[in-house]
Amino acid sequence: MNNDALTKAISQLSRFPGIGERTASRMVYWLLRQDPETAVAIGDSISSLPTSVKRCKLCFTLCSTELCKTCRMPKRSRAIICVVERPQDIETIESTGEFSGTYHVLDGALSPLKGIGPEHLRIRELLLRLQDEQVQEILVACDPDTEGDATAMYLAHLIKPLGIKVTRLAHGIAVGTELEFANRSSIMRALANRHEL
Amino acid sequence: MNNDALTKAISQLSRFPGIGERTASRMVYWLLRQDPETAVAIGDSISSLPTSVKRCKLCFTLCSTELCKTCRMPKRSRAIICVVERPQDIETIESTGEFSGTYHVLDGALSPLKGIGPEHLRIRELLLRLQDEQVQEILVACDPDTEGDATAMYLAHLIKPLGIKVTRLAHGIAVGTELEFANRSSIMRALANRHEL
Repeated sequence: MNNDALTKAISQLSRFPGIGERTASRMVYWLLRQDPETAVAIGDSISSLPTSVKRCKLCFTLCSTELCKTCRMPKRSRAIICVVERPQDIETIESTGEFSGTYHVLDGALSPLKGIGPEHLRIRELLLRLQDEQVQEILVACDPDTEGDATAMYLAHLIKPLGIKVTRLAHGIAVGTELEFANRSSIMRALANRHEL
Repeated sequence: MNNDALTKAISQLSRFPGIGERTASRMVYWLLRQDPETAVAIGDSISSLPTSVKRCKLCFTLCSTELCKTCRMPKRSRAIICVVERPQDIETIESTGEFSGTYHVLDGALSPLKGIGPEHLRIRELLLRLQDEQVQEILVACDPDTEGDATAMYLAHLIKPLGIKVTRLAHGIAVGTELEFANRSSIMRALANRHEL
């Protein structure tokens, strides 16, 4: 490669997970075929992220103000807090329009293998919210995997003694999936969580 | 989404070809989990591209100086110019170590469908080089597709009358490919370009 800036941009873009050197190089060459404004617009939108994206002081989702949109809404119920692993999980739940409570972002899940313990998650901040507010239920919406399961168990263990209900999103066979094509873990969950009609 | 900067970064990253909104959103959320320096380093490397990457005045490849590395090398033969569609094609050919001439970047190929005519390519600049230099051969290394073929034909039509040889990279069955697995177009080219032993 003849140009340092070119090499640097390619190696910087390859830092993104899922972007290999080949894709990065294709991205850079595409950029160089556009107006100079395109590169500046894309680059600035990235470099300004850390200063313009804040965390909500209450639920720790990403936002641009002290409190996020959901936490500012007076209509949202403070009685139920939905605990998620990542900020983007909030959007997924909001898209159903079926949840009227507030949220809490853990910023991950417990994983002894990856060295992520309770001190790395925003569990302390969640417990503080339980003291401040009239919370009646914690709905754990962690992923249905080993780490999500461990986190849910840990939270239940911690919060149930406080007299607060701890629930978890139901997992089972996805709606629209034929039994034949459901994966084994989903079927196992579906069996374990079967309910009376 | 609660944050304008977030939405903007996602929509800016989705401008890259092959990067959908989902991937862009995954990239942005990954960035927000890194040190602030990461976003700044990646962003700056992108926004500085247009100012730090120049075009070689002779062959129009990307470089950081007036003339690119290849054009500055006194040892490279000025008698043969290899014409490529894109700057990155030069690297591909250089990687073989088998070409000792100079290059010329067309910046695309003729494509009536996409509205790309000769005036959109650096053909005028190539013709100027033919007047200035003692060029004996133009080796067309355009892609072996309809557009590359059209460009090669057009260049031959234009340059052969000047008494300069116009050649093209051989296309046929890729080395290492078993005949059974070669694609139809490659076999067709291989038949048409068969040579005596």
